[in-house]
Amino acid sequence: MVTRKPVFLVIGAGAGIGGHAAQRFAVGGYHAVLARRSDAEGLQKLVDAITEAGDEASGRLLDASLPDTIEELVEEVERDIGPIEVALFNLGAQIGNRSLADTSDRMFELGWRLATYAPFRLARALMPHMVSREKGTLIVTSATAAMRGNAGQHSHAAAMGGRRMLCQTLNAEFAPQGIHISHVVIDGAVNAPDTLGKMLGDKFEAFKGEDGVLDPAAVAETYWHLAHQPRSAWTHEVDLRPWTDVPWWNDN
Amino acid sequence: MVTRKPVFLVIGAGAGIGGHAAQRFAVGGYHAVLARRSDAEGLQKLVDAITEAGDEASGRLLDASLPDTIEELVEEVERDIGPIEVALFNLGAQIGNRSLADTSDRMFELGWRLATYAPFRLARALMPHMVSREKGTLIVTSATAAMRGNAGQHSHAAAMGGRRMLCQTLNAEFAPQGIHISHVVIDGAVNAPDTLGKMLGDKFEAFKGEDGVLDPAAVAETYWHLAHQPRSAWTHEVDLRPWTDVPWWNDN
Amino acid sequence: MVTRKPVFLVIGAGAGIGGHAAQRFAVGGYHAVLARRSDAEGLQKLVDAITEAGDEASGRLLDASLPDTIEELVEEVERDIGPIEVALFNLGAQIGNRSLADTSDRMFELGWRLATYAPFRLARALMPHMVSREKGTLIVTSATAAMRGNAGQHSHAAAMGGRRMLCQTLNAEFAPQGIHISHVVIDGAVNAPDTLGKMLGDKFEAFKGEDGVLDPAAVAETYWHLAHQPRSAWTHEVDLRPWTDVPWWNDN
Amino acid sequence: MVTRKPVFLVIGAGAGIGGHAAQRFAVGGYHAVLARRSDAEGLQKLVDAITEAGDEASGRLLDASLPDTIEELVEEVERDIGPIEVALFNLGAQIGNRSLADTSDRMFELGWRLATYAPFRLARALMPHMVSREKGTLIVTSATAAMRGNAGQHSHAAAMGGRRMLCQTLNAEFAPQGIHISHVVIDGAVNAPDTLGKMLGDKFEAFKGEDGVLDPAAVAETYWHLAHQPRSAWTHEVDLRPWTDVPWWNDN
Repeated sequence: MVTRKPVFLVIGAGAGIGGHAAQRFAVGGYHAVLARRSDAEGLQKLVDAITEAGDEASGRLLDASLPDTIEELVEEVERDIGPIEVALFNLGAQIGNRSLADTSDRMFELGWRLATYAPFRLARALMPHMVSREKGTLIVTSATAAMRGNAGQHSHAAAMGGRRMLCQTLNAEFAPQGIHISHVVIDGAVNAPDTLGKMLGDKFEAFKGEDGVLDPAAVAETYWHLAHQPRSAWTHEVDLRPWTDVPWWNDN
Repeated sequence: MVTRKPVFLVIGAGAGIGGHAAQRFAVGGYHAVLARRSDAEGLQKLVDAITEAGDEASGRLLDASLPDTIEELVEEVERDIGPIEVALFNLGAQIGNRSLADTSDRMFELGWRLATYAPFRLARALMPHMVSREKGTLIVTSATAAMRGNAGQHSHAAAMGGRRMLCQTLNAEFAPQGIHISHVVIDGAVNAPDTLGKMLGDKFEAFKGEDGVLDPAAVAETYWHLAHQPRSAWTHEVDLRPWTDVPWWNDN
Repeated sequence: MVTRKPVFLVIGAGAGIGGHAAQRFAVGGYHAVLARRSDAEGLQKLVDAITEAGDEASGRLLDASLPDTIEELVEEVERDIGPIEVALFNLGAQIGNRSLADTSDRMFELGWRLATYAPFRLARALMPHMVSREKGTLIVTSATAAMRGNAGQHSHAAAMGGRRMLCQTLNAEFAPQGIHISHVVIDGAVNAPDTLGKMLGDKFEAFKGEDGVLDPAAVAETYWHLAHQPRSAWTHEVDLRPWTDVPWWNDN
Repeated sequence: MVTRKPVFLVIGAGAGIGGHAAQRFAVGGYHAVLARRSDAEGLQKLVDAITEAGDEASGRLLDASLPDTIEELVEEVERDIGPIEVALFNLGAQIGNRSLADTSDRMFELGWRLATYAPFRLARALMPHMVSREKGTLIVTSATAAMRGNAGQHSHAAAMGGRRMLCQTLNAEFAPQGIHISHVVIDGAVNAPDTLGKMLGDKFEAFKGEDGVLDPAAVAETYWHLAHQPRSAWTHEVDLRPWTDVPWWNDN
């Protein structure tokens, strides 16, 4: 479908930050395009929740680790739906803590492929469109591992450190062309039933405490704010964590 | 006057970020208390602009470099106006570029007194009130000089570097008690007729370019966003600069 | 040849930092193993210069971008020459400034392969040996691009940002096992006839000024110092630049 | 006494880093001037240990928190002993962890006075002499608190954050004039009987573990290295910690 609304594209649209961001932008007047790797049913649920509320959304399955997938998605959305005004790269590459010996070549490369190379590919496909319109926003969800490398995080931290520097090089090239690039350091656990919930099972409720995990709807609200900052006052980097969490730079 | 509204207190309420923040919070339903060092007339104008729009504001003159001034202001506001829900420390200590030889003891100390010690005093006066209510927000306007020390910035950078670390120690102690502390790195020139305008005179318009200086109203909008983040997703540090400005970490 | 000396292995042994480090460690009593991608003749010259001075050295050609090369080199050196006490990863991935549109998938991946993945592979091959001996040092030559991403540095900065985080994860896992990991930020041009000299041609002498480019022998001296810090006082990160250079965090 | 040797001046010469640095530079051919606040007897012991070994040293008592003391010391040493080639500012301002409520105005100001203002004063007194000779080195011992602000560190972190920025502004102004400024982040406990030993008492030996606290002689060796880097390859910032310590940026 072609839309008259501006388009919000999110790559990595699960039930956490990605899905909530899609919902927030849809409510705010965007056509939300949700892309994720698998679970067509879960994706449809997210899309339906938005359209049933009277807002606009589409869903796409795509494997960001495969060639041309991201590139084709961008072209298709631009051609068949509408100009992408805001894009959110929301794929992570966390594989838990593993010693160096237990970090295989494949894991290390996959971390890079998803967390560093995929946002590069998204930017390369997207920037020409945004530059031709002299506006647009690219928000990149990032992680503590972009700021410091903890034990066991060889794959994840190397990939995220690369992602952070990439966001800086993108900002340096494209901000003066009117494109807002924002790198968001998610410095805490997110209240996401798909990931954290599955991992913790029964202990999830206790772990969450009183507002003790990041509410993805609240994160989405900050993304909305970033995307609507006037160009005279843009944020490139921002951190987010629950009130009870110790920031990454402090001792536990 | 006693208010039924939550109170927003800004120390350093000129015609730039401070004044615009006061206006933004007043429009949003706060009673804004504007404090500044001098120019009773200019202060009254800012207060009048808010009250004539049907919102609430009060003005106070105070010299933050003198003992007890900040402390007494906090007590007076809490007692006579209402509980301070959001405070903005907005005093800078920029004195232009000076070589070490031209940076006197007095200048170096004054930089510390205004930029590091004054926010410490504000925090010490304010935190007990906020802690007793288990909520509150302290936003601190900061500067590029908090991140790196350029030539000629001996006084300013030393003071701002201290300010940034202070914001981190405040966050470490008070975030778990429900108080949101936010350090905002203003990494560009602000469109402020009082300071930048006077300095540049005729050249001000050309310097500003097309959205090329920070619009204080846009900065105030980000402050509003920070102050209303739910405690499950707080930002401690954020940067702001115009789209055409080179971030502090990039080469010019 | 089997040596009785401790072994110093350098990957990326050109006429700049790598070659000078080999020489410094050879003079200091190590058997230096110099590995580089090409130019067997140039390599032999470096080896000869060391052995003619009465010290020990061997040379190896290896393409660090190919599978198993680094891994086999480590095994071969450990088996046929002796235990590697100090290793230096000295390969860069600078390809000059290129816009995003001019940065191909291949370039971006090659940057990662040489600058992030290759040191990961070196560490994975080397650490078991060093851990079994409860000592060893891995020095990684890095660059300004590991600290901030400038325009045109998409491939280089992403790769170096990943490298820096990798060095931190390696340090976090292996320092407590007695292995010293050091990340050296080379924040200036190096006086290397192979690279800078060829690039600048006639202008090289003028560019160098009075000690205005990093002397690779001086860099090697700092590497020597790092490798011999007692474990009670280890340096993980250090920067190096000529006196006339502006540090990366300052404005030009 | 007038010396023919270059002079090494250390402010903060206790039995830890300061005293060991004095000894290292004396052994290396400098006349060491040791200045500290109190304990004339302890000071004399340090001086005697150096002179009895056949090297040169002098001692001075000075209270760096009082006006003119640092300035007069610099003038006196330059006039009566010889040109200061290397100076080490080694005073800390750690007062242990204190809540904001327990951090008095006096403590907060004293932290600044000793940790930020005193090195500013040293630099202002010393730089004209070094600039006139177009060479010299100023090393500043710093602390983790210069990099991040932990709970309870309001005074210390604010002062050290200011110190770090000051070192950057000094470097920006004076490096191009031939003066090497180095900021050393001591990121661990130092094996100092005067401070750590007294604090821990019987538990000191167990706490130290196997090389588990910074050996001040090893720290002094790194200072010696920094002071003798040729100007083509200067280090501005370096960290030091024991192998078993978790770096400040990692989780405990």
